Amino acid sequence: MAVFTPVTAADLAGFLMRYDVGSATSFKGIAEGVQNSNFLVETTRARFILTLYEDRVDIDDLPWFLALMTHLADKGLPVPRPVTDRDGVALQMLNGRPACMIEFVTGVSVSEPSPEHCHAMGAALGRLHAATTDFATPRANSLGVAAWPAMADRCDGRFAEIDTRLAAIISDGLAATRDWPPGLPSGAMHTDLFPDNVLFSGHGVTGLIDFYFACTDLRAYDYAVTHAAWCFSAAGDTHYPERAAALAAGYAETQGLSADEIAALPRLGEGAALRFTLTRAYDWINTPAGALVTRKDPMAFGRRLQWYARATPDMVLGNSDAPAAGLRR
Amino acid sequence: MAVFTPVTAADLAGFLMRYDVGSATSFKGIAEGVQNSNFLVETTRARFILTLYEDRVDIDDLPWFLALMTHLADKGLPVPRPVTDRDGVALQMLNGRPACMIEFVTGVSVSEPSPEHCHAMGAALGRLHAATTDFATPRANSLGVAAWPAMADRCDGRFAEIDTRLAAIISDGLAATRDWPPGLPSGAMHTDLFPDNVLFSGHGVTGLIDFYFACTDLRAYDYAVTHAAWCFSAAGDTHYPERAAALAAGYAETQGLSADEIAALPRLGEGAALRFTLTRAYDWINTPAGALVTRKDPMAFGRRLQWYARATPDMVLGNSDAPAAGLRR
Repeated sequence: MAVFTPVTAADLAGFLMRYDVGSATSFKGIAEGVQNSNFLVETTRARFILTLYEDRVDIDDLPWFLALMTHLADKGLPVPRPVTDRDGVALQMLNGRPACMIEFVTGVSVSEPSPEHCHAMGAALGRLHAATTDFATPRANSLGVAAWPAMADRCDGRFAEIDTRLAAIISDGLAATRDWPPGLPSGAMHTDLFPDNVLFSGHGVTGLIDFYFACTDLRAYDYAVTHAAWCFSAAGDTHYPERAAALAAGYAETQGLSADEIAALPRLGEGAALRFTLTRAYDWINTPAGALVTRKDPMAFGRRLQWYARATPDMVLGNSDAPAAGLRR
Repeated sequence: MAVFTPVTAADLAGFLMRYDVGSATSFKGIAEGVQNSNFLVETTRARFILTLYEDRVDIDDLPWFLALMTHLADKGLPVPRPVTDRDGVALQMLNGRPACMIEFVTGVSVSEPSPEHCHAMGAALGRLHAATTDFATPRANSLGVAAWPAMADRCDGRFAEIDTRLAAIISDGLAATRDWPPGLPSGAMHTDLFPDNVLFSGHGVTGLIDFYFACTDLRAYDYAVTHAAWCFSAAGDTHYPERAAALAAGYAETQGLSADEIAALPRLGEGAALRFTLTRAYDWINTPAGALVTRKDPMAFGRRLQWYARATPDMVLGNSDAPAAGLRR
């Protein structure tokens, strides 16, 4: 929520000369993201987001992220396009940091998505998955199923500082996700499509942004991440089946979920909830209580993890709100 | 450099209904100012800065600040106008904070002003001073000459933690400014017109912003603040007479400085430099070294203070670069 690397108007003017975008008419640091420095740049021609990548992003991955965004923009997805300089280069250096100018997209994030928003989100997610079937280069998910045991170890047994139930929830989640569904279709994906990474105009998606956790993983896992992000109350204590049903209906507008993917949804949801529980727990333990950065409650995803552990595929799809008697997994 | 009070899209949509400005098409927190939460709001009609005033601003003063900005905008100054709601009210409450929507102005701040920028700044400052002669209500300068001894006391003898010379510089500055020029013309003014509070398009001023230190004081003191802010190297170790001459020439386009004001400039400059040395020293002492907020070096203004202590009026006006032999004050 800050600008880490300052950029002056003189720095910007020199930088913009590499591009064919006109000269700056407005320039403001924006309080977006906790990883990078972001600026809203308005020129005589258009508006852009200028991002300087800070230490938390592995800069070796930046060309992959930018290539994926460009691929999706080329396919007509509502993804802001990385801007290339006069020589066709998107990834630059500025003030000692890797930097990129990206098209500005209008739209606002929703904090309490309606079913209409969830339908549009599901449709956009399906289009995104369909659009990456010919995106060949893989990038491993460094926060995926294989990484979760080590991520839990890095929290050094301090879960009780957050919540007395958390250690057991994570232990159960790790045990469950050792049984990870095999053979499901994979592809390049976002894996962090929380409402704050999606811009809307009315109920239409105008922008999918912040691709810096994108990777290659199971498509139905990305669906489960999106379900976890959009279909619960913020605290994770209430699941909204009408949102879940709308998400599924929107996703079904493209290839939709196969029977195998549907059967795997509760387990994939446990994994998605575990991933965010773990990263939030690590950040919580390593962020001073008085820091300017707001700590996100790990238990908000711990509660989701508990919900998925008891859920049926139909519940994740929003077709029922509770498991039928005797039919628990 | 952060958003302290979060505002969701739903909060914003409800807030905008008070106004006749259309609905939001884009909404971003901006990393501007260390005192308040600022958002860039784009609607179907126009763009605005939405400010939520945090604890460091005395909310009792907000009506005065907004009235002054409106007065200046009415007079054609490049000052963004506070927007009023359907009932004509500018100052609102949002998420428990006083809040105001202010017109967005384009332009970029300069970090290394050229003489042309200084000329435009001087002209804008003269117009601002001329435009407040009929702004009747006074507001005392809580960071003015009467406050400096107490501001020094609040630093609790810890100047040596910053620089071994600082205690002596401040002591000399306090002694000098006890002899404060009487009888000079006063008015409502900005008193914080640093380059980051001035927006330019080319060499033309498009915006004077951040009026939250505005008050009633000596006009020539505001001139001295502006000289201190624009006519030195960032570290305060070099004075640029060509910038100072351009500032003076720009200011002279309206009423200009009287002979009494010119004679008082070195002393007023000592006061201006002392004010920023003291506030920076206080912030330095009270900001942890590891905090996200960048600490500003008090000695950058301590060095300016030493320059003014040796300066002649002609030096402040940029007419000479050193006192004539035997003519030191």
